[in-house]
Amino acid sequence: MSVYLDWAATTPPDPAVIAEYSRIAQTDWYNPSSAHEGGRRVRSVLEDSRRRAADALSSDPESIVFTSGGTESDHIPLLALLQRSSRGSIAISAIEHAAVSEQAKAMEQAGWKTLIIPSNRDGIITPEAVLSTIREDTALVAVMGVNNETGAIQPIREIADALEAGRPAKRMPHFHVDAVQAVGKIPFDFNVPGVHSYALSAHKIGGPRGIGLLKLSKQIEPFVRGGGQEGGLRPGTENVAGAAALAMALEGATRRIAEGTAGEEIANRLFAGIANIPGIRPIPDGRAEADPRFSPFIAQFTNRRFPGEVLVRALSDRNIYISTGSACSSKKKKRPVLEAMRVDPDSQQNAFRISSGPGTTESDIDAVLAALSELMGV
Amino acid sequence: MSVYLDWAATTPPDPAVIAEYSRIAQTDWYNPSSAHEGGRRVRSVLEDSRRRAADALSSDPESIVFTSGGTESDHIPLLALLQRSSRGSIAISAIEHAAVSEQAKAMEQAGWKTLIIPSNRDGIITPEAVLSTIREDTALVAVMGVNNETGAIQPIREIADALEAGRPAKRMPHFHVDAVQAVGKIPFDFNVPGVHSYALSAHKIGGPRGIGLLKLSKQIEPFVRGGGQEGGLRPGTENVAGAAALAMALEGATRRIAEGTAGEEIANRLFAGIANIPGIRPIPDGRAEADPRFSPFIAQFTNRRFPGEVLVRALSDRNIYISTGSACSSKKKKRPVLEAMRVDPDSQQNAFRISSGPGTTESDIDAVLAALSELMGV
Repeated sequence: MSVYLDWAATTPPDPAVIAEYSRIAQTDWYNPSSAHEGGRRVRSVLEDSRRRAADALSSDPESIVFTSGGTESDHIPLLALLQRSSRGSIAISAIEHAAVSEQAKAMEQAGWKTLIIPSNRDGIITPEAVLSTIREDTALVAVMGVNNETGAIQPIREIADALEAGRPAKRMPHFHVDAVQAVGKIPFDFNVPGVHSYALSAHKIGGPRGIGLLKLSKQIEPFVRGGGQEGGLRPGTENVAGAAALAMALEGATRRIAEGTAGEEIANRLFAGIANIPGIRPIPDGRAEADPRFSPFIAQFTNRRFPGEVLVRALSDRNIYISTGSACSSKKKKRPVLEAMRVDPDSQQNAFRISSGPGTTESDIDAVLAALSELMGV
Repeated sequence: MSVYLDWAATTPPDPAVIAEYSRIAQTDWYNPSSAHEGGRRVRSVLEDSRRRAADALSSDPESIVFTSGGTESDHIPLLALLQRSSRGSIAISAIEHAAVSEQAKAMEQAGWKTLIIPSNRDGIITPEAVLSTIREDTALVAVMGVNNETGAIQPIREIADALEAGRPAKRMPHFHVDAVQAVGKIPFDFNVPGVHSYALSAHKIGGPRGIGLLKLSKQIEPFVRGGGQEGGLRPGTENVAGAAALAMALEGATRRIAEGTAGEEIANRLFAGIANIPGIRPIPDGRAEADPRFSPFIAQFTNRRFPGEVLVRALSDRNIYISTGSACSSKKKKRPVLEAMRVDPDSQQNAFRISSGPGTTESDIDAVLAALSELMGV
């Protein structure tokens, strides 16, 4: 058996959720756009899933657009800008996931200027940083809910308020929040006034791969088009089994949050243990247990002895699975999030991430602490 | 039990394929981009699926890009045009699926001109029509393999040859083929010289929803970006279970083609039966059994008595499931494919599609023939 501490990359599937996927895929397989009784029945399964997902987010079914995952959910508002007749700028935080940051860069080829909202040394985007970055022509602002490498919780409500009160233009920019690492992990409001869209992914909360959703509180004109499914916002035959599985996973995630999770205890044990291992320190410096500015489920550290990927491999050899940072950029050596936090190059190179989830046990934490102690030569 | 004759909209799932999906989703759930042993193991499952899918198409694994479905596979080459520094034109056939035609229209907002390649009255795109439509600035040509409403098989090889020999520009345009209705239905070459990409979808061959592939024989610079997965061509955590299921479905589809299918016999029975029902005639006019220019699995008809959607409902009430045309545009009254074939408005309005698959039986055909006879007042 391995110790899994890479929950930010993906989560172990909930067997009940996969069973539900499998059941719906077998029984309710008709195309929901077909006008016959089979199609109509599957349409009602899809709409029922939409209602359940909406309920879990305390939102309206009309605001839920099922997508193929977090990346596509991030892309829909960004690509919708191509539909506008004039070009302008896009302001994204310096710590966004590649789904946002790489796509924003690509938008430059289509005439859009990308502005980077700087992070502070703690990996947090302040409302002031947002206001001092945006311009009158800023059409979209993207700040993620919880950073996937450091766990830093971003002040989304404060940023939305600042945009409302202090923006340079008359028109509100579209404010998009990638909430992939927030949902099911921390209490998180999916209905902040002034936030226009949230991106979610099923496989980060025990659901299957290939399904996610965009929670959209504002009408947008999509650029990516096809058969008109999902209110015209996400073309392609609907993944009904995936939608049902996502709804079920979201219900579970919401329940866990409502019941209170063991995340804090796990984080406390981890940080207390790390403090006793010479040669390892948290990023940002001074992050300690129970810091409410961070998700208890994601922690970034650096060490004096090994490059991050060497440490990942050494732990893997001991059947302990962690990552350096984003799995999505594990092949690249660059660490843009740490760079944005002004972490020095050596500490960046030797950085690693421990991410946990509702299934993480104290003995998982003890195992990684023991292995790290050994590797640090304690 | 219902009689299912809407296979072009989606196919009944192969229970073995869904079981394989479920098995991989439960056991090989790690993120293939994670550097630990779990991630590496899942990476090998993904690459094994890629090899199997490639083998089924007699192609190289390097040419296989897993996507979320047919629509996304159609979009990747189209959206890649946005990466180019100059704009030009896109030539699409008049009978393309909405995934291509609606996206091509959207590209106009980004400065690309859409040219429509006319169809003949049989719903076939001739090489001559392609050559007389394209211009020197045509960067992409899209002609589908098998039309989803009429079953017309397009002369892809002849079009590719014509583009090679007779194009007005030095540079070959990217030639994209939506092969969603071709794969597993008719013998189809996925390696025609001069064709640069093919789009496929799993759920049209017994696989799950939410997974498809783009078979790409030419390097393109993608516009849609993120974590760099699938060689940078399709961002988002890989749907490994979906990829394995698609590979398995493709293997089954290829086997069926190699063994020869009963499609012709089913088509013969259908057309012979329809010929005996007054008030119903095929579209195009004169299409008869065993016409090699059409897929035996898709047939379009029109009738004298009922609007298509009324007929669909009347058959549904008798537990027989068909569609009017594309399920993806079932909510729209317009029939652009029939319009392109110069079908008169009344015949368009009263048109309906019967589509079958490898599971279709003679008694399914007899059931729809009996119901249609009754409805026509025979």
